[in-house]
Amino acid sequence: TQERLRKELKYFFMNPCQKFKLRKRKPFKLTIQICKIAFVTIQLVIFGQHNQNRVAFMDDNISVFRNNLMNNESRLYTKDEVYSKINFLRQQYVKLKNSSVGIYGYLQEQPTTDCPDAHPSLASFDSDKLIGSNYMTPPIYMCVDQYMQPQLDCFYFRLINLDLKFGVRTVWMKNPGSLYDTDCYNVYIQVKLNNQDHAGIIEESISSQFALSPCRETQPKKIFFIVFLFLDAFIIVTCCMSIVLCTRSVWRAQRLRRSFERFFEKQHERRLSWWSKLEFVNGWYLLIIISDILTILGSIIKMALQLQWHGTVNYDACSLFLGVGCLCVWVGVLRYVGYFHQYNVSSSRVGLPCHWRRFPCIVWCMIILVLTLKKAMPHVLRFMVCASLLYLGYMFCGWVVLGPYHHKFRTPVVASEALFSLINGDDMYMTFEEMAKTSKLAWIFSQEFTSPIYLYTFISLFIYVVLSLFIAVIMETYETIQVQ
Amino acid sequence: TQERLRKELKYFFMNPCQKFKLRKRKPFKLTIQICKIAFVTIQLVIFGQHNQNRVAFMDDNISVFRNNLMNNESRLYTKDEVYSKINFLRQQYVKLKNSSVGIYGYLQEQPTTDCPDAHPSLASFDSDKLIGSNYMTPPIYMCVDQYMQPQLDCFYFRLINLDLKFGVRTVWMKNPGSLYDTDCYNVYIQVKLNNQDHAGIIEESISSQFALSPCRETQPKKIFFIVFLFLDAFIIVTCCMSIVLCTRSVWRAQRLRRSFERFFEKQHERRLSWWSKLEFVNGWYLLIIISDILTILGSIIKMALQLQWHGTVNYDACSLFLGVGCLCVWVGVLRYVGYFHQYNVSSSRVGLPCHWRRFPCIVWCMIILVLTLKKAMPHVLRFMVCASLLYLGYMFCGWVVLGPYHHKFRTPVVASEALFSLINGDDMYMTFEEMAKTSKLAWIFSQEFTSPIYLYTFISLFIYVVLSLFIAVIMETYETIQVQ
Amino acid sequence: TQERLRKELKYFFMNPCQKFKLRKRKPFKLTIQICKIAFVTIQLVIFGQHNQNRVAFMDDNISVFRNNLMNNESRLYTKDEVYSKINFLRQQYVKLKNSSVGIYGYLQEQPTTDCPDAHPSLASFDSDKLIGSNYMTPPIYMCVDQYMQPQLDCFYFRLINLDLKFGVRTVWMKNPGSLYDTDCYNVYIQVKLNNQDHAGIIEESISSQFALSPCRETQPKKIFFIVFLFLDAFIIVTCCMSIVLCTRSVWRAQRLRRSFERFFEKQHERRLSWWSKLEFVNGWYLLIIISDILTILGSIIKMALQLQWHGTVNYDACSLFLGVGCLCVWVGVLRYVGYFHQYNVSSSRVGLPCHWRRFPCIVWCMIILVLTLKKAMPHVLRFMVCASLLYLGYMFCGWVVLGPYHHKFRTPVVASEALFSLINGDDMYMTFEEMAKTSKLAWIFSQEFTSPIYLYTFISLFIYVVLSLFIAVIMETYETIQVQ
Amino acid sequence: TQERLRKELKYFFMNPCQKFKLRKRKPFKLTIQICKIAFVTIQLVIFGQHNQNRVAFMDDNISVFRNNLMNNESRLYTKDEVYSKINFLRQQYVKLKNSSVGIYGYLQEQPTTDCPDAHPSLASFDSDKLIGSNYMTPPIYMCVDQYMQPQLDCFYFRLINLDLKFGVRTVWMKNPGSLYDTDCYNVYIQVKLNNQDHAGIIEESISSQFALSPCRETQPKKIFFIVFLFLDAFIIVTCCMSIVLCTRSVWRAQRLRRSFERFFEKQHERRLSWWSKLEFVNGWYLLIIISDILTILGSIIKMALQLQWHGTVNYDACSLFLGVGCLCVWVGVLRYVGYFHQYNVSSSRVGLPCHWRRFPCIVWCMIILVLTLKKAMPHVLRFMVCASLLYLGYMFCGWVVLGPYHHKFRTPVVASEALFSLINGDDMYMTFEEMAKTSKLAWIFSQEFTSPIYLYTFISLFIYVVLSLFIAVIMETYETIQVQ
Repeated sequence: TQERLRKELKYFFMNPCQKFKLRKRKPFKLTIQICKIAFVTIQLVIFGQHNQNRVAFMDDNISVFRNNLMNNESRLYTKDEVYSKINFLRQQYVKLKNSSVGIYGYLQEQPTTDCPDAHPSLASFDSDKLIGSNYMTPPIYMCVDQYMQPQLDCFYFRLINLDLKFGVRTVWMKNPGSLYDTDCYNVYIQVKLNNQDHAGIIEESISSQFALSPCRETQPKKIFFIVFLFLDAFIIVTCCMSIVLCTRSVWRAQRLRRSFERFFEKQHERRLSWWSKLEFVNGWYLLIIISDILTILGSIIKMALQLQWHGTVNYDACSLFLGVGCLCVWVGVLRYVGYFHQYNVSSSRVGLPCHWRRFPCIVWCMIILVLTLKKAMPHVLRFMVCASLLYLGYMFCGWVVLGPYHHKFRTPVVASEALFSLINGDDMYMTFEEMAKTSKLAWIFSQEFTSPIYLYTFISLFIYVVLSLFIAVIMETYETIQVQ
Repeated sequence: TQERLRKELKYFFMNPCQKFKLRKRKPFKLTIQICKIAFVTIQLVIFGQHNQNRVAFMDDNISVFRNNLMNNESRLYTKDEVYSKINFLRQQYVKLKNSSVGIYGYLQEQPTTDCPDAHPSLASFDSDKLIGSNYMTPPIYMCVDQYMQPQLDCFYFRLINLDLKFGVRTVWMKNPGSLYDTDCYNVYIQVKLNNQDHAGIIEESISSQFALSPCRETQPKKIFFIVFLFLDAFIIVTCCMSIVLCTRSVWRAQRLRRSFERFFEKQHERRLSWWSKLEFVNGWYLLIIISDILTILGSIIKMALQLQWHGTVNYDACSLFLGVGCLCVWVGVLRYVGYFHQYNVSSSRVGLPCHWRRFPCIVWCMIILVLTLKKAMPHVLRFMVCASLLYLGYMFCGWVVLGPYHHKFRTPVVASEALFSLINGDDMYMTFEEMAKTSKLAWIFSQEFTSPIYLYTFISLFIYVVLSLFIAVIMETYETIQVQ
Repeated sequence: TQERLRKELKYFFMNPCQKFKLRKRKPFKLTIQICKIAFVTIQLVIFGQHNQNRVAFMDDNISVFRNNLMNNESRLYTKDEVYSKINFLRQQYVKLKNSSVGIYGYLQEQPTTDCPDAHPSLASFDSDKLIGSNYMTPPIYMCVDQYMQPQLDCFYFRLINLDLKFGVRTVWMKNPGSLYDTDCYNVYIQVKLNNQDHAGIIEESISSQFALSPCRETQPKKIFFIVFLFLDAFIIVTCCMSIVLCTRSVWRAQRLRRSFERFFEKQHERRLSWWSKLEFVNGWYLLIIISDILTILGSIIKMALQLQWHGTVNYDACSLFLGVGCLCVWVGVLRYVGYFHQYNVSSSRVGLPCHWRRFPCIVWCMIILVLTLKKAMPHVLRFMVCASLLYLGYMFCGWVVLGPYHHKFRTPVVASEALFSLINGDDMYMTFEEMAKTSKLAWIFSQEFTSPIYLYTFISLFIYVVLSLFIAVIMETYETIQVQ
Repeated sequence: TQERLRKELKYFFMNPCQKFKLRKRKPFKLTIQICKIAFVTIQLVIFGQHNQNRVAFMDDNISVFRNNLMNNESRLYTKDEVYSKINFLRQQYVKLKNSSVGIYGYLQEQPTTDCPDAHPSLASFDSDKLIGSNYMTPPIYMCVDQYMQPQLDCFYFRLINLDLKFGVRTVWMKNPGSLYDTDCYNVYIQVKLNNQDHAGIIEESISSQFALSPCRETQPKKIFFIVFLFLDAFIIVTCCMSIVLCTRSVWRAQRLRRSFERFFEKQHERRLSWWSKLEFVNGWYLLIIISDILTILGSIIKMALQLQWHGTVNYDACSLFLGVGCLCVWVGVLRYVGYFHQYNVSSSRVGLPCHWRRFPCIVWCMIILVLTLKKAMPHVLRFMVCASLLYLGYMFCGWVVLGPYHHKFRTPVVASEALFSLINGDDMYMTFEEMAKTSKLAWIFSQEFTSPIYLYTFISLFIYVVLSLFIAVIMETYETIQVQ
C-alpha cells in the first residue's frame, strides 16, 4: 500500500498536462471550464444589454415625470412655493395623458396603504391657496406627517414630511426587429416634501416604483424567448456538472490526505503539520464551486424574470450574481495559464505546495492566499495592520475636524474614499481648494492653518513612505520567488 | 567560398559607420531617411493646418444651423413642443438667407432619396397645429417612420423617427493672403426627432453633410497649388526609392541566409535554428517599408483632394495615413541612434541578434519584438495574460452590475477605458461619488456596499500589486541587459 | 548593585510579552490603551454626528437668508443695482417671518456696537431712491465706511464698505426620536457691500453669527444628556490614569538612566554618549501623554458645550482636540503591533535602540524620530533640505511671475498647494490650459513661451528626479534594516 | 614653484569650512549670498503683492466694461444681432460715467491711429438700423476691414473685421493705510467683431490697454516710496559686489588652470584632458553670476516703474527677471548644503571633480551638468533622444489625426502638453470621453477604433515602459554614486 500511496500522491500533484500524458485522461474539467467561460459571457452580454435598456426606459420615464409634473426648483423656501408646487403638480397630472408624447394612462387604486390615516385630508392646509376639487380625478393622495405638540400652533412648524402619491400606467413598446416582447408597467410615483431638519428649507424629491402588470392585448411570445430560456437551462446544467466534478476532486483529495496522514504518523511518529495538510486543499476548486453557485443562482433568477414570476427576486440581484460569477469564472482560468510552459516541474516533493509557487499564480495568491508566501507574509501582514491603523486614525480625525465644512469628509465612508483617492494622486488640488473655504477658528488653531498640515502630512506619509515601502515589499517578494 | 561567406556575413552585421569605414560606402539609406523625416513633417504640418481650418469652418456652420434654425431644447416631452419645433424650423429656414451674417443660398433638389415613400406627406399630423404652405418654398422634406399596427390608433404612439431634410449652399471665402482657393459647398442638413425608445421623450439631433460643388465664378488657381502638388509628388518619389532600397536589403539578407544555411547544414549536419534565421530579418527595414507605404497612400489621397477628385477618398483617411506614416518615420530614426556610440561591438558572434540587444532599441523592442528578450519573455507574456484575464473579468462584472446606473460603465469599451484610467490614478473620487448615487437593492447586497468593494479591490490589486510586479519585471530585464 | 543594575536594564528593554512571561506582570497599560481606543472612538462618532447636524442646520439657515433676502447677483456694477439691493433686502426682511417655511422671529436690540457712529444715518444716500421709513421696523442698521477727503465730492467714490446688520431668532426643533433637546438661537446677520478696490465693482457677501439663547418654553432634559456626560467623565478619568502610568514609566526610565550613567562613567571613565542616553526616552510614552492631554481638553470642552457654558470655548476647538487626540491614540497602538511576532529578540545589547529598529515602527519612526535611522538620516535630511530649497525657489518664482494671471498661483500658500498637487500628478492639463490664457509680453520672453517651460522643468525635475531619488533612499533604508 | 602650485591647487579644491580652518579666511561670499537671499525674497514679496493688486484692478475694470457695455453673447449669428450690439454699446458708453459705481471719465482724443482710413465712416452700414448721431459724443471710432472684390455686393460677405475703439479715464484710489499712491489711468478699449472665417459666426472680443497718466490733483509722495527705492538700490549694490567676487574667483581659477596646464604638459609631456580642465570651471559661480545679472535687471526696471518712467519696460518683464533671479538665488544655496557634513573629504585627487560628486549636488547636477555623471550619461542621453523621438512621433500623429476633432490636440504645443499630462496620469478619462465624440470614418479605420488604440499604446508605452526604465536609470546612478 505504501507504493500505491506514493503513486497516488505523485499523481495528485501532477497538472492536467502530465495527467494526460501519463494516463491519457482527457482534461474534462478544463473543457467544461472553457465552455462555461464562453456561454457565461454570452449570457452576461445578452442580459446586460437588456437590463441597460430597461433601466434607460425607467430613467427616461422618471425624467418625463420630473419635467412634466414639477417645475424645476428642488428646494422650497417660502409657503407660497409649497402651495404653487402642489397646485402645479395636480394640474399637470390631469394634463399628462393628453399632452405627453409618451403612452400614459391613470391608475384608479390607492398606490400604497402606508399613509398614516391620522392626516388623510388636506384640512391642515389653507384651503384658499389650493385649487379646487375639479383636479381631484384622477386622484393624488397626500400623506402629511407632523408633530402633535400643542404648543406649536402653526402648521408649517409642525410639518415633518408631506408625501404626494399617484399612479400612472405605461407601455414599453419594442421596435420591429427587437428580440423582446412589449411590457406594461404600473408606475407608483411619490413626490416627497421633506422638512425633517426644520431649518427653513423644504427639500423636494421624486421617486417611482415600476411593477410589471399584464398588458390588455396579449401578443404571441417571440421565438427568442425560448432560445434565451434554453441557454439559461444549459448553463445551469453545465455549472451543476462542474460542481459535481470539483466536489469529487475535493473529496478525493481529502480521502488521500487522511490515508497519507495515517501513513505519516505511523512512520514519523508525529502529526502532519497544518501547513502540509493545507496543500491537499486546492483553492482553485473552491473558487470554481463558488463561481458555479453564483452563476446558477443568477441564471435561476434570470429565468424567473423572463417568465415574469415577480416575487422577492429582482434585476439588480440577478446582475450582481451573474457579474460576480463571471468575474470568478475568468479568474478561475488563471489556474490553467500556469501549466502551459512548465511540463517538467518535479511535483514529487511533498511538503512544498508547488502549484502555488509558480509565477502566474502570484497575482491571485497575493489576494486570497498570501499564506504560502511564508517569508513575505509576516512583513506584509504587519505592514498592512500598521498602515490601516494610521489610515483609520487619519480618517476619523479628518471626519470629525473637517467633516462639517468639507464635502469630501461628510461621512467616514466618504472620507475613506477621498483619502484613498488622494493616495493615488487624484483630485488633490480641489481638496486643498475646498479646505480654504472652511470656517475659521478664532484661535491659533485656525482651520486655514491646520487643514493643509493635515493634508500635507497625510499625502507625504502615504504616497512617499507607505507606498514606497509597500512596493519594496512586493519587489522583494518577487525576487525571492524568482530565486527559488 | 567559405572565406567569402564569412566576409559577407561580417559585413552584413556591421552598422552604417563600420560599413562606411570599411568600404567607403556612403550611407545612402540614412540620407534618404533624414530627407524623408524633414519633408514628411513639413507636408504633415501644411496638411494638418488646412484640415483643421476646414473642420473649424464646418463646425461653425453646424453651429449656425443649430442656433438659427432650432430653439435650444434637445429633448421634447409634449406634443405641443413637437409642433412648435417643426414650425419654428420652417419659419427660420425661410429667413436664413437674409438674416444670417454668413453666405447662404437654398438648394432646390431633393437632398437624399432614402425617404420611405409610404409616408411622404404631412397627413399623419394634426394640420391645424402646423403652419400653412406658404412656408413650403424652399422645401423641407419630412420622412416619417412609424408602425403599421392597426390596434395603436394614435400617431404619437406609432412614431419611431421623424426626419426633416433640407439643403443649403455656402461659400468658404478665404481672406487675402491665404494660400488656398475659395471653395463652394452644398450642405445637406438632417434634423432627426428620435422616438425609438417610446419612453415619453423625443430626442432631437442635427447632422449635416458637406459636398464640394463648383463655384459659379471660376477663379485662377493660386501659385501655391502647384507647390503643394510638387511637394507631394517629391515625397512619393522619395518613398518609392526608400522602398526599393529596403526591399533590396531584405532580399540580399535572405539570399545570404540561404547560402549560410546550406553551409551550416553541410558543416554541422543539423538545421539552422529558427532563432538564428530570424536574425537575418531586420525589423527596422519592415518598419521603414510600412511607413513608406502609408506615406505614399496618404500623399496620393492628398493630391486627389487638392485636384478635387471626390470619390471614395476623404480627409480623415488622408490624415490617418499621413499621421501613422509620420509616427513610423520618427520611430524608424531610433535605429540610427543606436550606432553613434558603439563602434567597437564585435558583431561576428553569429547566433546572437546583436543589433537588437543594444539599449536604444529596447524601447522599441518591447513593443514589436519582445521575442529577443528571451529570458524576460515567458514572464512578461504570462504576466500579461494573467493580468488581462483579471482585467476582463473585472470589466464584464463592472459593466453588468454597475452599467445601468453608472455613466462610466455604460458599455464594455467605456468600462475598459474607465478602469484603465483608474489604474493610472485618474478621476478616482468622481467614480466613487457617482457610485453612491446608484439604485439600491433591498438585500444585504446593496449597491452602496458592493460597489466600493469592487473599486477598492480593483484599484489596490492593479495599482499596488500588478503594476509593482510589472515594474519589477521591466527593471530586472534592464539589469539583465546591462550585465550582458 | 552591578548585578541588580544589569537585571533592571534587561527588564527595561523587554517588551510587554516578555515582562508578562518573566514576572507575570499583567499588561495594565495595554488594557487601558485598548479601552481608550474604543471609548474615544465612540465619543468621537457621537460628537461628530451631532456637530455635523448642527453645521448643516446653520448652513441651511444661511442659505435661507441668501435666497429670501437677496437677489442672486454678488457683484454690483451700477448705482441703481446698489439701491435696488438695499430696498429689496429691507422689503424681504419685513416679510421673512410670515412667508418663510422656517421658524423665524425678529431681534429688537442693536446686533453689534462696532458700527462707527460718524455715519449712522442714510443721509449719504440719495433718499429718493430708497424706500420709505415704514420698512424700518424691524430695524436694519447700516454702517457706512467712507473717506473724509473733501476733494472727492461723490458719495460712491468715497465709499469703502457698507454694512447692513440685522438680527433674527430661530429654533432648532428636533424630530421625535432624536437624542438631543430643542435649541434656540439668536442669529446676527451682516450683509457687506465691499468697495475697497475702487475698481467699479462692489462685491456683496453675507455672513451670520449664531448664539445660543434660552428658549421661552423650558423642556425637561432628555435621558441621553446624562449618559453623554457620564461617558465624557469616564474618558477623562481613564486618560488621567493613563497619564499617571506613563509619567511613572518615564520617570523610572530616567532614574535608571542616571544610575546607569554613573555606573558607566565609573567603569569606562568617559561620559555616556548622547545617542545612548536617548534610548532611555521612550517616544511612545510621550505620544500617549500628548494624546491623553488632547483628549482630556476635548472632553472638558464637550461637557461645557453640553451644559451650555458658552465662554471662550467652541465646537471647532472641541472637534480639533478630539480629532487629533483620536489620531494619536490610533497611532499609539502601532507600538504593540511590533511585539506580536518577535518574542525572541535579544534586547540585552545596550547601545542599540532595539525597540525602534523593528519593522512596524518604521512607518512611525520616519516621521517623528528619523533620528535612529542613523545611516539614512544624513541622506534623507540633506535630501529634504535640497528639495525644499528648490521647491521654495520654484514657489516664489511661480507666484511672482504667474500669480497675477493664474488662479492657482494667486498666493504663495496656494502656489505651494498647486505645485504639491502637480508633483503628485493632479490637475496638470488644467494648469497648462490656464497658463495659455495669461497676458502676453511683447518680448521674446512671452508668457506663452516661459510658463510651459516653467511647468515642464518643475514637473520633470520633481516627479522624475526628486521622487525617484526619494524612493531610492527609502528602499535602500528598508533593505539596510532588513539585513541587520 | 611646484610646491606652491601643489599648495594652491589643494587650497583651490577646499570648501569654505576648510578654507576658514586653514587660513582663517572669513566666508565673505557665503555671507553675501545669505544677505542676498533674504533681501531678494523681501523685495520679491513686496513687488509681487503690489503687482497682483494692480492686475486685479485692471481685471475688475475689464469686467466692468464687459458687463456695462456689452450684453453677454460673444458669438453673433444674425445681422440684427450685429446692429443691436453696436447700438447697445454706444448707448451704454454714454451712460457709463453716471451709472457706474466706479470712477470713470471720457477721453476725447482718437485712441489709436492704425485704423485704415479707407473705411472710416459708417457708410457701409444700413443707417436705418443704427441709432442717430446724438450718441456720437463721447466718440466711438469704428474701423471696418473688408474686401474690395467688386463681385461680392453685400457688405456682410465682404466684412473681415469691425473694430470699435473708445477711451476711458479712471483712477486707482488707494485706501487709507496703503503704502502706495493714487494712480490715474487712460484706458483704450477695443471691441473687435471678427468675421475672418466667413463661416456665419462673428466672434466678439474685448481688449483694453492701460496707460498711466498724471493725475490732476498732485499729492505728496508717501514715505514708503523712498524706502522701496532704497531697498532696490541696496540690492543692486549687493549683487554687483557678488558679481565682482565671483568673477574674481573664476578668473583666479583660470589663472591657476593655466599654470597647472603648463606644469602638467612639462611633466607628463601630453596635454591636459578636456575633462580635467573642466574641473577648474565652477558651475556654481556661473549660476550666481546669472542670478545676479537677472536680479540687477529686475531691480532697475522696478525702480523705473516706481519713478513712472514708462518706456519699453513693463511689469511683466520685471516680475520675470525678479522671479527667475530669485529661483537662481535659492538654487545657488544648494552649494553650501553639501559642505556641512563632509569636512574630511580628501580633495587632493586631481582629475575627479569632487565638488560635483557629493550627494546634495546631484539634484542640481542632473539638470545643468549631467556631464560629470560620466557613466550614466551615455544611457541617459541616448534614452532621452529615443524617448523624445517617440514622443515627437506621437505628438505629430495625434495632432494631425485627432486635432480637428479633439480639443486637446488642437495645436502641436497643446498636444504636447496633453500627452505630457497623460504620462503623469492626469485627465485620462476625459480624454477618452472626448475621443468618442470625434467624427467617424466610413471605413474599417473609424476614429472610434483608432483613437483608443492611439491612447492605449501611448500611455502603456510611456508610463509602464519608458518611465520605469527612466526610474531604473536614475536608481542605478544613485547606487553607483553611493558605492564610490
